[in-house]
Amino acid sequence: MSEHQYRNGHLVIIGGGEDRKHDMEILKRFVELAGGTEANIVVITAASTIADEMWSIYDEAFGTLGVTRRSHLMIESRQDANSEAFVRQVDDATGIFMTGGDQKRLLALIGGSALDAAMHVALKVRGVTIGGTSAGASAMSGHMLATGRVELHPEKGSVSLGAGLGFLHRVVVDQHFSERQRLSRLLSVVAQNPYLQGIGIDEDTALVVDIGVGIEVLGQGAVTIVDGRTMITNVADIKDRDTPELIDVRLHLLPAGSSYQLPTGATEPGKGLPPPLLDFLENVTKRNPLS
Amino acid sequence: MSEHQYRNGHLVIIGGGEDRKHDMEILKRFVELAGGTEANIVVITAASTIADEMWSIYDEAFGTLGVTRRSHLMIESRQDANSEAFVRQVDDATGIFMTGGDQKRLLALIGGSALDAAMHVALKVRGVTIGGTSAGASAMSGHMLATGRVELHPEKGSVSLGAGLGFLHRVVVDQHFSERQRLSRLLSVVAQNPYLQGIGIDEDTALVVDIGVGIEVLGQGAVTIVDGRTMITNVADIKDRDTPELIDVRLHLLPAGSSYQLPTGATEPGKGLPPPLLDFLENVTKRNPLS
Repeated sequence: MSEHQYRNGHLVIIGGGEDRKHDMEILKRFVELAGGTEANIVVITAASTIADEMWSIYDEAFGTLGVTRRSHLMIESRQDANSEAFVRQVDDATGIFMTGGDQKRLLALIGGSALDAAMHVALKVRGVTIGGTSAGASAMSGHMLATGRVELHPEKGSVSLGAGLGFLHRVVVDQHFSERQRLSRLLSVVAQNPYLQGIGIDEDTALVVDIGVGIEVLGQGAVTIVDGRTMITNVADIKDRDTPELIDVRLHLLPAGSSYQLPTGATEPGKGLPPPLLDFLENVTKRNPLS
Repeated sequence: MSEHQYRNGHLVIIGGGEDRKHDMEILKRFVELAGGTEANIVVITAASTIADEMWSIYDEAFGTLGVTRRSHLMIESRQDANSEAFVRQVDDATGIFMTGGDQKRLLALIGGSALDAAMHVALKVRGVTIGGTSAGASAMSGHMLATGRVELHPEKGSVSLGAGLGFLHRVVVDQHFSERQRLSRLLSVVAQNPYLQGIGIDEDTALVVDIGVGIEVLGQGAVTIVDGRTMITNVADIKDRDTPELIDVRLHLLPAGSSYQLPTGATEPGKGLPPPLLDFLENVTKRNPLS
């Protein structure tokens, strides 16, 4: 298959607590992107220890949204994540949804598996939509926020990263962001890892990434971006648990309703794109290699 | 008196909740700057409706720190704030301390009074130290944070400013900053007033300004600065209570122990001064006109 036959998919990265009962704005968009009532949606509950309950919630929500082809990938082991049957289900899906729970559990079960590889093919070759909420959102980046205390101030050594699924690179995703006052935690990540831009997504809020095209913020809250690439800091010189000096962190707040598109030609500015966002936009919408 | 005979004073801007019982790091520094055991300290409790209780707290604290000349300016009316007796006490003071309470009440009582003018002379001509905590800290800037809801996100129209004492200009000071999760509120101010840089001071933390020289952060927390001067925003176009898009807000976090000095010559960089802080430093350490 040559390069131009690839179809780029979408990511729907949800900060947790999305509405599943009423207007379901975010889940509805996920379903639309996955093909509407023609969608074939698989739900991955492996982040959660109450997988059946998770499945029943999304089974009902996607059913209400008119999706008849919906199924639960009940992954309880890495063998499951390497099973032909589950890989085939992913190969047939038009939408893949990852529930909340614990992103470390999710990655321990599916990271590097055949299922993981099939998800990358789905996203980057077949143009499938991948959604994830809470833990399922944090799991999407290559460097994944694994554990981290929430303190009043950023603290050296308070956050640890792990290896995520890698649909996005050079970012780290935190969720329940404003509700759980996690800016300090995200600043802790960025202070020690200025290679990464921090993305904080509020509850019932989604960052929708249209690979190669642009981004959109949906829902009730906002997406906060912290960019420490030009920051000046003493973090290398202080002790663990100390608060670093951080000078010139760039902060962007994108409320629901915001959308930004990549420039489409040398003379065509990206629709509504403020220049300081170009870098971020190019990075998150980049079509990454298959593995 | 010619210009070179002026002595510049200090500001000790405290985010509330400073230790008044144990090591009293911040109050001790205030006393040292005001002359140590030789200091003559007046306490202005006018922000508070429980002025006597406030006075007894600081009476005890300053007494413990060895200050024998300490007195309470019990200001209950604008007549009090224009009384010769109180103005004379300010004229004789080496340290002036403003307690917490409500900064609007403080300004309603002393704003524009003879006492207010005497405080400017004290700071800018006699080199006196002026301290303020909580409401007494917010009162120090020319544009004063008067009222403001704390919401999860910045909101248009959620904050109103008033006229403060004006020891500092082009800034707005918020206090109890990390403890009360006030970054959104400070961003609301800056979004609508990008002329102002926001200063958020944590509890038991002080920003010490040595006019014409530099700044220092003391205590247990940090000072957060938000600078929206190069920000891109849609705040002019959205409705009240909506969350603005904010792109490229600059954020600085200065933990306790940080200190920065102005450059002292064309070839001499300011001690430990990161270039993005120069602007802020020049602004807050500026010797402003007497009125």
